[in-house]
Amino acid sequence: MRTPLLFNAFVMNTPSHLSPGLWTHPDDHGRDYKRLAHWTGLARLLEEGLFDALFIADSLGVSDVFGGNADTALQQAIHVPINDPFPLVSAMAVTTEHLGFGVTASVSYDHPVPFARRITTLDHLTDGRIGWNIVTSSLASAARNFGRTQLDHDARYELAEEFASVCYKLWEASWEDDAVRDDTKAGVYADPAKVHPIHHAGRFFEVPGIHLSEPSPQRTPLLFQAGASERGRRFAARHAECVFVGAPSKTVLKRSVSLIRDARRAAGLDPYGIRILAEHTVIAARDLATAQERLNAYRAHASASGALALMSGWIGHDLSRYGLDEPFRHIESNGIRTAVEAMSSADPNKVWTIGEIASWCGIGGLSPLSVGGPGEVADSLESWAEETDIDGFNLSYAVLPGSFRDFIEHAVPELQRRGLYKKSYAEGTLRRKLFGRDRLDAPHPAGLARAEMAASSRESRQSRKAEEPA
Amino acid sequence: MRTPLLFNAFVMNTPSHLSPGLWTHPDDHGRDYKRLAHWTGLARLLEEGLFDALFIADSLGVSDVFGGNADTALQQAIHVPINDPFPLVSAMAVTTEHLGFGVTASVSYDHPVPFARRITTLDHLTDGRIGWNIVTSSLASAARNFGRTQLDHDARYELAEEFASVCYKLWEASWEDDAVRDDTKAGVYADPAKVHPIHHAGRFFEVPGIHLSEPSPQRTPLLFQAGASERGRRFAARHAECVFVGAPSKTVLKRSVSLIRDARRAAGLDPYGIRILAEHTVIAARDLATAQERLNAYRAHASASGALALMSGWIGHDLSRYGLDEPFRHIESNGIRTAVEAMSSADPNKVWTIGEIASWCGIGGLSPLSVGGPGEVADSLESWAEETDIDGFNLSYAVLPGSFRDFIEHAVPELQRRGLYKKSYAEGTLRRKLFGRDRLDAPHPAGLARAEMAASSRESRQSRKAEEPA
Repeated sequence: MRTPLLFNAFVMNTPSHLSPGLWTHPDDHGRDYKRLAHWTGLARLLEEGLFDALFIADSLGVSDVFGGNADTALQQAIHVPINDPFPLVSAMAVTTEHLGFGVTASVSYDHPVPFARRITTLDHLTDGRIGWNIVTSSLASAARNFGRTQLDHDARYELAEEFASVCYKLWEASWEDDAVRDDTKAGVYADPAKVHPIHHAGRFFEVPGIHLSEPSPQRTPLLFQAGASERGRRFAARHAECVFVGAPSKTVLKRSVSLIRDARRAAGLDPYGIRILAEHTVIAARDLATAQERLNAYRAHASASGALALMSGWIGHDLSRYGLDEPFRHIESNGIRTAVEAMSSADPNKVWTIGEIASWCGIGGLSPLSVGGPGEVADSLESWAEETDIDGFNLSYAVLPGSFRDFIEHAVPELQRRGLYKKSYAEGTLRRKLFGRDRLDAPHPAGLARAEMAASSRESRQSRKAEEPA
Repeated sequence: MRTPLLFNAFVMNTPSHLSPGLWTHPDDHGRDYKRLAHWTGLARLLEEGLFDALFIADSLGVSDVFGGNADTALQQAIHVPINDPFPLVSAMAVTTEHLGFGVTASVSYDHPVPFARRITTLDHLTDGRIGWNIVTSSLASAARNFGRTQLDHDARYELAEEFASVCYKLWEASWEDDAVRDDTKAGVYADPAKVHPIHHAGRFFEVPGIHLSEPSPQRTPLLFQAGASERGRRFAARHAECVFVGAPSKTVLKRSVSLIRDARRAAGLDPYGIRILAEHTVIAARDLATAQERLNAYRAHASASGALALMSGWIGHDLSRYGLDEPFRHIESNGIRTAVEAMSSADPNKVWTIGEIASWCGIGGLSPLSVGGPGEVADSLESWAEETDIDGFNLSYAVLPGSFRDFIEHAVPELQRRGLYKKSYAEGTLRRKLFGRDRLDAPHPAGLARAEMAASSRESRQSRKAEEPA
């Protein structure tokens, strides 16, 4: 029996996520992002389809690289307008019981004290179904709106390390497991001797006090990360429980996966103690011809300028300066070289034009596409998983929620038959469902923080006892 | 026909709000604050009872004045642990259609860019039912946890003015009403010419960009405020649509109300264009004897040390230093003088002891109590409203949700008979329900911000037109 793969649905609180222009397709309901029922309905659908989690991307800036302004982004709703992902979680938790929620939050624009409390609150309200996608924020437009110049790449990771460390102390090292007595007879809610100030003093933050919230089911949320740089991988190896990777070809994806597992090994950790999920888009139907037809209908709604605006933001290079027929690989810039390499690997003999890149990015961004009936889609996902050593997929959509409904209807039963998709949810928190435990233990820094607190409070209790007169 | 009074339910995302010790009473379910169903059920109950809004207090610090530490606060769950109020709103919106939500958020520990986006997101998801209680945060322990020394009182209000001003620009002056075209035929989601950067540069914040979210039903949330100082009243007169006041006696309450209406007048505004709600606690039952019995049962669970810890935090003076028999008015401190004056006014001939103060604060904090069957409660609330010139009540609870259920069952029908309680909800947003309009207009600064933006974009369109060749 094979181990089932993990499946997340990948969305953003905005009209259009990774398929620019498809908000104009009659089957797409992304424009309902402002309505509560849109999200509670989506959550129910995904839980019926036994998805592991809904993964919500976020950005606090506007993509203004393409053409040097935000015009195309606004016209094509390329991640603007964009609403806060957090308020979606508790609403979706009302209509579901098992679905996990991975929420993106940047360490650059929040303070660990209210952030840690927000996460603990959601972990309580969802009975332990919350995950945090740690991002460091690379958009210059976001930094400007916070009245700051952007920290450089390495300093951002230093900030991320400290932000996470403060959070771990708050989540794990402030309240002992039995600090809350909730004893109505004795009239004691919490035992002050078991609630500890964290005394954090660092480069970016000073947090002397206690965590404002009592321990939640997972304490630390399930930790996601997506860092692709060398520094990002080191961060992921140390902190992340799930890593999200994106690559348009098996060659590139396989290399990314092995670099992540190597980074775990280098840190003295089990390379398979981390779950790696690849971005992917599935167009499923009852048979290949219908799926192909569906894809063609989607392509007719794709927006080339929208795709180039999206991509210009990612690579930090203005693609509006070139004609659609110009070859992509002749453009020089750091971001471009990476993108070209990635795209080329999908077909090494091909010289991609700007227009072809735009067309590729039109459905699901840079992610690979699997198109077909039950057999073709299952074959494709199976080969991607086997050949690249990933643990599962983050599924982007072409139309919302149609792409997920089609996947559930046409692909899931076949994947289940092959043992590649679970047949029911495991009980318990999101971490227990994925890793068989509710909380992070040492050597993870969150587990270490809890262990250190437990040891030091045991010690201080013993020394107090020793000082008492016999 | 009399105008119905407004009624809010006053709660906090913590086991015990304003009735210290009552979390030990078998009818109190405050300890379920971590469970989603607790809140969605409460919201449904309040909507069945035609409450105008649920008002959620908050604090980002721990009360550590009493005894110089947080021990009593932790033992008695005096606003610690305390969870984030925001995640409650979207969940409660799922199970209700009309109930408003007033959420407390401090200008001291957030940045206007993500804050304005969070509020707009909630205004969208709730179809315009969100209110913001603007607070400036007075707890030193909160400031310390943000690695800061606390701003002085006036500087906090300066910060509040600028924070609100940035939010108004984001909410009102960034996206024109018809900026979102949502035109699938033309393939245009938003018209970039109608989305404007706000170019804010001030003492505390620099925000050059656009609002991340498209306009929501109310744009600016319904604005609540509770400032009691002279500076606070000036702020309220200029910004607040609803003001929340607390006073244990009619004399003191009446004076507070008239000072607020005077401040409106001084600012050239209609003194009755603002709604003033007074904190109040109701113990209702089918008759006076049953209500009195209920109150006695509650008092048996009240915690004197909890009440004194709560009060010590409010007045900034450690009441643990005195015996319960000591007279309250002999203690000297600024906060104390105000409290003594307030308490004394409830019975001018009485010298209150520390113990009596603790007992008074045991049920509903400093708020007055109305106890009885339908007639007594209606008589009492009617006389409070008539004699003090308030527009409604913020009801605290003794037990949750029992106090609200009792109020709805026993007091509401009699209040409705007297024309003091509405018989159905008005349609539309929270602001429309209360003021007959969805949005703030000039001379409110939020309305001014929108009007200025509209004028300047009209002008720039005209001048562009004039420059075009004929």
